[in-house]
Amino acid sequence: MDRFEVNILGCGSASPTLQHYPTSQVVSVREKLFMVDCGENSQLQFRKSKLSFSKLSRIFISHLHGDHCFGLMGLISTLGLLGRTSNLYIHAHADLEGLLRPQLDYFCRENSFEIIFEPFSPVLSEVIYEDRSVRVTTIPLKHRVPCAGFRFDEQPKEPNLKRDMLEFYNIPLRMRGEIKKGADYITEDGQVIPNSHLVRSAEPPRSYAYCSDTAYNEKIIPIIENVNLLYHEATFAEKEAMRAVKTMHSTARQAAEIAKQGNVKELMLGHYSSRYPDNRILLNEAKEVFPNTILANEGLCKKL
Amino acid sequence: MDRFEVNILGCGSASPTLQHYPTSQVVSVREKLFMVDCGENSQLQFRKSKLSFSKLSRIFISHLHGDHCFGLMGLISTLGLLGRTSNLYIHAHADLEGLLRPQLDYFCRENSFEIIFEPFSPVLSEVIYEDRSVRVTTIPLKHRVPCAGFRFDEQPKEPNLKRDMLEFYNIPLRMRGEIKKGADYITEDGQVIPNSHLVRSAEPPRSYAYCSDTAYNEKIIPIIENVNLLYHEATFAEKEAMRAVKTMHSTARQAAEIAKQGNVKELMLGHYSSRYPDNRILLNEAKEVFPNTILANEGLCKKL
Repeated sequence: MDRFEVNILGCGSASPTLQHYPTSQVVSVREKLFMVDCGENSQLQFRKSKLSFSKLSRIFISHLHGDHCFGLMGLISTLGLLGRTSNLYIHAHADLEGLLRPQLDYFCRENSFEIIFEPFSPVLSEVIYEDRSVRVTTIPLKHRVPCAGFRFDEQPKEPNLKRDMLEFYNIPLRMRGEIKKGADYITEDGQVIPNSHLVRSAEPPRSYAYCSDTAYNEKIIPIIENVNLLYHEATFAEKEAMRAVKTMHSTARQAAEIAKQGNVKELMLGHYSSRYPDNRILLNEAKEVFPNTILANEGLCKKL
Repeated sequence: MDRFEVNILGCGSASPTLQHYPTSQVVSVREKLFMVDCGENSQLQFRKSKLSFSKLSRIFISHLHGDHCFGLMGLISTLGLLGRTSNLYIHAHADLEGLLRPQLDYFCRENSFEIIFEPFSPVLSEVIYEDRSVRVTTIPLKHRVPCAGFRFDEQPKEPNLKRDMLEFYNIPLRMRGEIKKGADYITEDGQVIPNSHLVRSAEPPRSYAYCSDTAYNEKIIPIIENVNLLYHEATFAEKEAMRAVKTMHSTARQAAEIAKQGNVKELMLGHYSSRYPDNRILLNEAKEVFPNTILANEGLCKKL
């Protein structure tokens, strides 16, 4: 099966601690790497995860709080030192370019590649990137500043031809493209071989949704519905539910509510407040609502 | 003895690696902490070293290369989250303010303290900070961009009064200040008690010089002369001597030459190129010229 995995580089909140780095993760789809958020030290976490810097293709920044973007300058600077030549695309709120450009012009003069900023609207759900392997859609979130999550959908694959049937009916090569697209085959003597006899369905496309940072927000449910894996922030335990409301974050239980209502296959919690020395308190509270829940952790590589 | 120590937070060069973080260190003089350079992840290294964020008083930035300053935004942001109220002074090249100000205004709006930039000239050696405990002098260095090191001098202390002699001669309290400043004492019957009988010399003031990044530069010798500890960059081994010239860095042997000619008590090497899996190659080359040499390493706390 083609590669589709999520590497957690950091899943803490606010400030780095001895337990967790600020938010960053890498979604690997086939040969391309997409970074989601880039808190301080993401470049070193990337290196530790043995991911290939040269395969990093695009960066998606959910919102402009420091714990989600302070690692960008260091990463970009290192990519320059590594001799990167292909442009790097950063999808983010429109303000990011103005904040980074002075530093890019100053510190990265000698880089052999450009940073291309691709601003998106955090209030619309829209496709902001698409290639042959993947489609990325924004998920408007509810936070203290404009903020969006991202849904990664693997592109549907063509069905696999059944080699033995093709040989049995002696189907010419030139017909095979049509059959992959759904055509039946008509033999020389007029017999119709239905498409379903000739192909084996491809595996259903997989999907991943990333939602951080956000208050509890049922409006995202239609957008994250049925994903294989939902990463949802779970900054607080229920005891801090009022604090979650005030700071526009979610409790673990609320993350689980979204997962349940969205009928997702699996939920991953993250963006933990540093007040919990053991994040299992969050895991347990979420599991009461949605049992198929796991905790994000630095170094975790989750295959979809 | 009053505290005077150097904590190494990072001593690598260019990009963080699995061995070394980018450059940052903390000079502790009595109750105040002075940070020297602030590469990415310095705030977490600071936390790991169990230093007190509230005692951080000033930051000195040697030059505007990313591996010496990309940690500033994260650190300042965390100080804000910790509720700091006292202003933070940053001594650096004049360009730094223009580079940081847009991000400070955007990300640190809610901070309850100000960042005060104190630009210095990197071509002059001058006192840029002084208080009752310490005096900081710039050391013009030779690098690809304007760059200065810093010399920290403990302020001379007044001598200690010999309690038994004061009692023996029954010297009134009001005279003691004068005696500490060097006065002799004349008894009621006209006998002159020389100052040296009444006081014990204070320990000689200690000093630390930080020199990174720089090409071999004998001009710094009069400025770093006789320090208790010299930190000198040693990016390369002798095999890469030509590369050192080209990139305006030093070899470990050159660092040792400066230490020897400067008659310093001890030399600490740092700013290692990532090409050396074992930095002892640098240590050994330096020791051939200046035996009293040690290697900087993350977590090292060197007491002066």
